[in-house]
Amino acid sequence: MSKFIAVNAGSSTLKFKLFDMPEESVIADGVIERIAMPDSHVEIKYGDGQKYDEIMDVENHEKAIQILLDQLLDLKIIADYSEINGVGHRVVAGGEYFDKSVVITPDVMEKLESLKELAPLHEPANVTGIKAFQKILPNVISVAVFDTAFHATMPEKNYLYSLPYEYYQKHAARKYGAHGTSYRYVSQKAADVLGKPVDDVNLVIMHLGAGASICAIKNGKSFDTSMGFTPVSGITMATRSGDVDPSLLAYIMGQEGITDINEMIDVLNNKSGLLGISGVSADMRDVEAAETTNHQAKVAREIYINRIVKYVGAYITELGGVDAIVFTAGVGENSITVRKEVTDELGYFGVKIDQDKNNVRGVVRDLSTDDAKVKTLLVPTDEELMIVRDVQALSK
Amino acid sequence: MSKFIAVNAGSSTLKFKLFDMPEESVIADGVIERIAMPDSHVEIKYGDGQKYDEIMDVENHEKAIQILLDQLLDLKIIADYSEINGVGHRVVAGGEYFDKSVVITPDVMEKLESLKELAPLHEPANVTGIKAFQKILPNVISVAVFDTAFHATMPEKNYLYSLPYEYYQKHAARKYGAHGTSYRYVSQKAADVLGKPVDDVNLVIMHLGAGASICAIKNGKSFDTSMGFTPVSGITMATRSGDVDPSLLAYIMGQEGITDINEMIDVLNNKSGLLGISGVSADMRDVEAAETTNHQAKVAREIYINRIVKYVGAYITELGGVDAIVFTAGVGENSITVRKEVTDELGYFGVKIDQDKNNVRGVVRDLSTDDAKVKTLLVPTDEELMIVRDVQALSK
Repeated sequence: MSKFIAVNAGSSTLKFKLFDMPEESVIADGVIERIAMPDSHVEIKYGDGQKYDEIMDVENHEKAIQILLDQLLDLKIIADYSEINGVGHRVVAGGEYFDKSVVITPDVMEKLESLKELAPLHEPANVTGIKAFQKILPNVISVAVFDTAFHATMPEKNYLYSLPYEYYQKHAARKYGAHGTSYRYVSQKAADVLGKPVDDVNLVIMHLGAGASICAIKNGKSFDTSMGFTPVSGITMATRSGDVDPSLLAYIMGQEGITDINEMIDVLNNKSGLLGISGVSADMRDVEAAETTNHQAKVAREIYINRIVKYVGAYITELGGVDAIVFTAGVGENSITVRKEVTDELGYFGVKIDQDKNNVRGVVRDLSTDDAKVKTLLVPTDEELMIVRDVQALSK
Repeated sequence: MSKFIAVNAGSSTLKFKLFDMPEESVIADGVIERIAMPDSHVEIKYGDGQKYDEIMDVENHEKAIQILLDQLLDLKIIADYSEINGVGHRVVAGGEYFDKSVVITPDVMEKLESLKELAPLHEPANVTGIKAFQKILPNVISVAVFDTAFHATMPEKNYLYSLPYEYYQKHAARKYGAHGTSYRYVSQKAADVLGKPVDDVNLVIMHLGAGASICAIKNGKSFDTSMGFTPVSGITMATRSGDVDPSLLAYIMGQEGITDINEMIDVLNNKSGLLGISGVSADMRDVEAAETTNHQAKVAREIYINRIVKYVGAYITELGGVDAIVFTAGVGENSITVRKEVTDELGYFGVKIDQDKNNVRGVVRDLSTDDAKVKTLLVPTDEELMIVRDVQALSK
């Protein structure tokens, strides 16, 4: 039996999950928030519903990891550091370098540093997390698991933009997509439910979390996806705009007196989507609760559903049909109404769900009626499990 | 019998078509190019294949119109200005003010001036053209026919972006679409071919010119369209990018050292699309000719077809099925291969065309095989005819 940690390091957060493998059981699950800010928050869930929960000052990522490992010892979750057999790091951008998970070497680190421009908010935090773990656990294998890697199979016609070709050649300006680890997990699980080898299935998977995207899966591989060069584009998200006419940026900057385009991109990332339209909340539950009395909340939900429906329709079209459409991630796993409304709008394709079967949250289930021509599946995602599976495979 | 002129004024061009109504016959058709530049070019086609073709200096739009009218007299196309019963002006942006064509009054002029910010390249030229005609023909009715008006029926969920709602309230930042006059003409004609009242048909119309867009028609009305706030977004065009991840603008500006976002928008409008990807030409015929030996030309065509197919699929989906898909405008009317490749990719919907029927250019024709579940129509557009029809209707 071996223990592996899946790590997701953000600019001020560090999330982790400790697994026993090959059992794939979760031993501990936690998060350190507000790193390098006053009153950092450390929370670790473990054992039989036990929880460690403290406010303290955590100066940086290295300190956060030290605290985390100390607590794993103190709480007797592990007896010694040597029990940890490997660490897997979620890395947002793999650029064109990485089409699968890799053991982190100095050469890999150099490439990750060079990719910072592709994901200026996330990549530096990922790199910081990797360095901090390597410093504290120098003899433990560390693996980079890329959000983009699964999309390396996209054909050129789908990853290129209709921009001057030299932008691709000189600056690697192209679609990379995201949520690849989730799509890899969910497509395999969906194939299992369908009773077919994953290489034989065509799917449209809707990963609907705070960040949300849609993926067209052709013979088990990513064929197209709604997120683009960065995760701001595609469908409407909690606070991200998804697709907008690019010339609107110039117009709004002029109207609002914004001179730095990065300020505009920040609005598109953090003040748009459900939050921006509704003016109520970034959380679908709040928006839904407000929609009977609040016009903006109502139209925010309509837009949210409409953008999903259009992408699903476009992807079923370019795939020439699918075995199933699949809901996953926060909203996809938990919102009975979103699943109902999306599938209602897809009736033309022979999508039809049973409302009793749909009255559920977070389980693997075929929601389709018996006469549905295209199946609708619910498959909870598990990116952390995929990460530690990759670490285990690469540490053999 | 009455004569009406349809006018399309650009920043340095003035196109016109003179019709006899209600016969709807074209008496003369011409263009003045390079206005306010050296060596302006005046060309008028008339009569039985006759042509007037001169290089001269044309200082401004007013001068252009004076030359045009003088030539109509000289060439004996008209005997007197009083024969002209009305002038219809194509106007690119109607904003939220205009949902149909209107007689131009001082109040209308004031609104047109206020809309310049929505279409900074086109609207000022349209206004200049209107003023020049009004000065020379002060007693002749002039009518504004808006490219956006047909899209006024789009539901809020389709015209709003997922941006802060205040941008819509304060700055009218929303989707307006374009090619509305073409869609109005083609949807009526398609309904005629289908033998149904236009209010009973659902269509997806592909207006594929140098500027290109797609429109979802629900019960004869615009329900959704691929162009957005401006004509830069949507599908891949001759030189326009169509949809791109907005954060790419910030990234490329950083990489290329571009500090003015309008410079970037200019690249998206004038150096992207087929031209940008292929590096060969903005003209589909040139790109097609190059594709066997030139990789970029090949992928440019693949992208062009793919983006059309995805929008058509998305729109058939949100319409819940259609009576027909319709090709129109330059490429749509003339490219046998583009029609073949697009319809090949839509086989899933039961779209199927007869290659013999498809071997044609610029005629009204049902291209479908007998067993096609969704019909495919070819309908040449005629925006100028729609313009003079509106002028005639409003001058009664």
